[in-house]
Amino acid sequence: MNFLSDTTSPAHPAILASLADANHGYAPSYGNDRLTAELKSRLESLFESELELVLTTSGTASNALALSILCPPHGMILCHDEAHIHRDERGAPEFFTGGGKLLPLRGSHAKIDPAELEQALAQWPQDFVHTPPPRVLSVSNLNESGCRYSVRELKALTGPAKSKGLGVHFDGARFANALVSSTESAAAMSWQAGADILCLGATKNGALGAEAILLFGEPRARLSELQARQKRAGHMGPKARYIAAQMLAWLRDDLWLDLARHANAAAAEIAEILRKAGADILHPVDGNEVFARMDDALAEQLRAGGAGFYQWPDGSARLVASWSTSDEELRAFEKIVSG
Amino acid sequence: MNFLSDTTSPAHPAILASLADANHGYAPSYGNDRLTAELKSRLESLFESELELVLTTSGTASNALALSILCPPHGMILCHDEAHIHRDERGAPEFFTGGGKLLPLRGSHAKIDPAELEQALAQWPQDFVHTPPPRVLSVSNLNESGCRYSVRELKALTGPAKSKGLGVHFDGARFANALVSSTESAAAMSWQAGADILCLGATKNGALGAEAILLFGEPRARLSELQARQKRAGHMGPKARYIAAQMLAWLRDDLWLDLARHANAAAAEIAEILRKAGADILHPVDGNEVFARMDDALAEQLRAGGAGFYQWPDGSARLVASWSTSDEELRAFEKIVSG
Amino acid sequence: MNFLSDTTSPAHPAILASLADANHGYAPSYGNDRLTAELKSRLESLFESELELVLTTSGTASNALALSILCPPHGMILCHDEAHIHRDERGAPEFFTGGGKLLPLRGSHAKIDPAELEQALAQWPQDFVHTPPPRVLSVSNLNESGCRYSVRELKALTGPAKSKGLGVHFDGARFANALVSSTESAAAMSWQAGADILCLGATKNGALGAEAILLFGEPRARLSELQARQKRAGHMGPKARYIAAQMLAWLRDDLWLDLARHANAAAAEIAEILRKAGADILHPVDGNEVFARMDDALAEQLRAGGAGFYQWPDGSARLVASWSTSDEELRAFEKIVSG
Amino acid sequence: MNFLSDTTSPAHPAILASLADANHGYAPSYGNDRLTAELKSRLESLFESELELVLTTSGTASNALALSILCPPHGMILCHDEAHIHRDERGAPEFFTGGGKLLPLRGSHAKIDPAELEQALAQWPQDFVHTPPPRVLSVSNLNESGCRYSVRELKALTGPAKSKGLGVHFDGARFANALVSSTESAAAMSWQAGADILCLGATKNGALGAEAILLFGEPRARLSELQARQKRAGHMGPKARYIAAQMLAWLRDDLWLDLARHANAAAAEIAEILRKAGADILHPVDGNEVFARMDDALAEQLRAGGAGFYQWPDGSARLVASWSTSDEELRAFEKIVSG
Repeated sequence: MNFLSDTTSPAHPAILASLADANHGYAPSYGNDRLTAELKSRLESLFESELELVLTTSGTASNALALSILCPPHGMILCHDEAHIHRDERGAPEFFTGGGKLLPLRGSHAKIDPAELEQALAQWPQDFVHTPPPRVLSVSNLNESGCRYSVRELKALTGPAKSKGLGVHFDGARFANALVSSTESAAAMSWQAGADILCLGATKNGALGAEAILLFGEPRARLSELQARQKRAGHMGPKARYIAAQMLAWLRDDLWLDLARHANAAAAEIAEILRKAGADILHPVDGNEVFARMDDALAEQLRAGGAGFYQWPDGSARLVASWSTSDEELRAFEKIVSG
Repeated sequence: MNFLSDTTSPAHPAILASLADANHGYAPSYGNDRLTAELKSRLESLFESELELVLTTSGTASNALALSILCPPHGMILCHDEAHIHRDERGAPEFFTGGGKLLPLRGSHAKIDPAELEQALAQWPQDFVHTPPPRVLSVSNLNESGCRYSVRELKALTGPAKSKGLGVHFDGARFANALVSSTESAAAMSWQAGADILCLGATKNGALGAEAILLFGEPRARLSELQARQKRAGHMGPKARYIAAQMLAWLRDDLWLDLARHANAAAAEIAEILRKAGADILHPVDGNEVFARMDDALAEQLRAGGAGFYQWPDGSARLVASWSTSDEELRAFEKIVSG
Repeated sequence: MNFLSDTTSPAHPAILASLADANHGYAPSYGNDRLTAELKSRLESLFESELELVLTTSGTASNALALSILCPPHGMILCHDEAHIHRDERGAPEFFTGGGKLLPLRGSHAKIDPAELEQALAQWPQDFVHTPPPRVLSVSNLNESGCRYSVRELKALTGPAKSKGLGVHFDGARFANALVSSTESAAAMSWQAGADILCLGATKNGALGAEAILLFGEPRARLSELQARQKRAGHMGPKARYIAAQMLAWLRDDLWLDLARHANAAAAEIAEILRKAGADILHPVDGNEVFARMDDALAEQLRAGGAGFYQWPDGSARLVASWSTSDEELRAFEKIVSG
Repeated sequence: MNFLSDTTSPAHPAILASLADANHGYAPSYGNDRLTAELKSRLESLFESELELVLTTSGTASNALALSILCPPHGMILCHDEAHIHRDERGAPEFFTGGGKLLPLRGSHAKIDPAELEQALAQWPQDFVHTPPPRVLSVSNLNESGCRYSVRELKALTGPAKSKGLGVHFDGARFANALVSSTESAAAMSWQAGADILCLGATKNGALGAEAILLFGEPRARLSELQARQKRAGHMGPKARYIAAQMLAWLRDDLWLDLARHANAAAAEIAEILRKAGADILHPVDGNEVFARMDDALAEQLRAGGAGFYQWPDGSARLVASWSTSDEELRAFEKIVSG
């Protein structure tokens, strides 16, 4: 029972098989291959929009590269205090932007409180030379507490941000998990909700390592700068066909959605099992992550039973389900809990 | 006949198969997996030394990360004017070091002339506050003209550099090609020749994307800083097992050496074919790259015949062989040339 | 009546005169002059400690340079949410550290709440590769609300910080104003209270432009790196004698303390006058700054009468007194207020 | 006899006096004062052009700030191998540009050889993602060998550079010395010769510390970014009136030109004296610097006699005259030489 992280899971067989299919003959390097082009048009139809595409092998790289074309070194990125870019990327956004500043905002369940955003936009002017101006709003969906922003909630943040001229970045490391927990389309949950750039992650949901940076609307004109930064950061992999191949298989026949549904359902079961055992589920379980507060006895019982999970800074336990979480694992987990 | 670059080649079947073998069950993320540990001890026996290991998916990342722990922002890296880190990485070393300076040195066949190094060390002092001090010597072997430094040649550079307190970085994107063209051991061609850090590349020689940063001797103490920088740069891939798996298969049963020998032999044939056709081979063909000056008629004839290669800034033609260059390609090439 | 900022004041005649005295004959450049040496020993006796000295012409430069030798690019600086380095330096600390992160902490009257510090030190580990570790605590004294930390209050912050291995930076742009409002010695208020580096500012208190970075204890060994960064940032002025001359005159015969006392007394009067007029004084007036909440009528009355002051982001009015605030100004101010 | 550097000289009395004149009453901070505005219009008439103005206290800051708005982090600056920005600013341009690269070009007497520039522009493409594109040409006039580029020579460099879309930066730390050695106007020697930005230095020619960044033509639109970078770098001095006051006095009644003529004439005398003594004058003495190769006996004789000068990396002796070089010094120098 490994609930430590969805990154401890293996890759889905179909995605691995796709590498073998791609492994024939010569192909142009650095993203000029046929598969990358095919992926681009696949994504354009999926997102119902023209877009520009850059591929990387890590979500941190993806987020930091995206932010670096939206935020100048002397500008500021607004994000939630729990945001992955703020807490878990070792300052990657600061590195890639050349010293941009992140301003952490509060809000329950890791959702930015619109009032906090309002206040930040009021307190940090756009045109005062002494103060880093807010230039980017970054929103994670699924977010760091495993919660999904509804389209309405997203617009309540992106609207005010855009009206002040900010660019909008969506961290979609678990975008699929958010999408399947809603009835929305990929377009509605991304650019139609205000995203200029979506970092779409497959690594946590079945790939070996495949992340896509999608530029919508105006930022598409920044593609060549983004590619320069991608190369400069060592993220323009010479054999890009193998990233494109993963993502194509991931999207084929809605595999990405099926895997996300599976992970979300497993998380819901985990939460239910823990709830019955008297644990306190701290956040709505919209996706594949469960945050629970339990007494030490129960925590000990779980660990002794062989369930792997992390203790969060706030003292709670985080349990993450993935595409590969099996029914056996869930039954075994149930068994431990019920002692 | 694709001689554009060794990065246009597919991955070797054994390396792809290794991914499938690695694709079972859960594994710790970020390099804490069993395969990465296994690779480390494999490399230690291969290089006859204790070492620290960091894995990435691109040679540019590998080089820039390595340089960033050897050169402070206000220091300087000495390299050849033709060095990949200087010409072909879009300023990655400058980015990762936080603004370190590269000083290009001259020398025939892309080998740093020891006299040029001597002069640079004399002209750029270590302790003058106004001047960026030389802090790193970077040497590519196999180098950018496809030539191999002998151990004696390497020591003629690393000796003076080390005596001034510089760190030494070897760019080994084609280390295997250099190694098999010599009678030296991996140890003799790396740390015994003065390297503090070797960036060992498998991507150009059969992998999908796998590069190893090897720290020898003192720099091993910098591992935690290197890991911080690796994470910060988005190069600490969550599912590291898949990089380790590639490299383990690459090293198994000397596959890496066999593939390099194959590529080198193919390059030698290409050179011979061109020589016969009256082309001027500009540099010793020690590895898998051929640089030829030919008249336009011949160049046109090759292109018309379907041979892919790049024209170099100096007007010459670069033809690169790889592990996958087939005898059919060579015969076809010969046929075009002989018209 | 100009209460906009202490930087709108002219220089004190004695400090200007000192420039003329220094303006004879040749002097070594870049801080190797006699006056800089004299200033260093003057400061060592004043602070009862060996120290290293670097001079600049701006407080922002001073703070950012100091922070850059305490915080690596992948580290974090803890400061108050109101800190000048966080709000008013356009990201200078992020720039000079190469992308270091600032974590804003809360606390009333712009004093860091020890509990907030405790929590930050607990939530942000030193040894987790994914998270920027806290490496520096930065404290402003006099702080941004015009309040003075007592030595006891300082130690309640620097103690826990040092026990976690953090370096400690004091922003002393108004150190003199804090000092004269206490009965402490310069030593007691700086290194004895935990400061590794004190940025001592004279510009706001009578100089044309003179700031000193003082390194105490271990960080003294970082002098050569600090000088490299100072040069690299364009802050190693060629004719340093003129900065040293300002600071020597500023310290001579306790001029710096007299000027600070004058400014503090004027601020106290301003506060008293406003209080009588029914304004709400928001923070203890320990130094030369007054923050008042007043009704629009009064604010309008003041402006109409010719009193210059800024409206703060929180809607309050900030009035700053300086060494040059005259009794005439205070009487005139009183007159307007009393209508 | 101090010929070490023009930065060892004191300030001219008229410039010091101007500080006293400026030292009355309150003035807006950060460059919004009356004197800065007056200076701007004075410079506009002097340079016969609209321009934007930013003031700093060091030439290194001035150059690096100017370059930072012309060169992106992933771009390249072309300059002479002897350029001050390359050799003597501890990597300031790399720091301020966020990791931009400097490409050193050769040419006799520290003048860029147009053929070298041509080759660099050919070898380093504008649109190849792997290579840092040339974005800026930087030219020092007076240059680092004390030579002046004629307007024709300047255009032979700026023409090709501009035709490739590069921005052009002139390092004018000794612009006045170059100007008075010609019959050209300030306009002809700057923007009419291709400069987008001129860094005009007064510090080496009579000021305490005053440098002006002048933006001509299109780059004027970058003023707000330049100011953001100026603030962020700690170079937006709070009491800017004192820099403007220096520069106003420096320009008043052509003082700057008189001081430069004096320095140039003194240098000519020094060269003549050394020539007579059999020393080899290495470069045309167009300005206030003399580079001489002499036998050790003569060098020793000079030092023993009390003449201060630096030995250059190439083994020659550099002697710098300034506005304050007196006839007594010259006669004394003559006396030593003639033994």
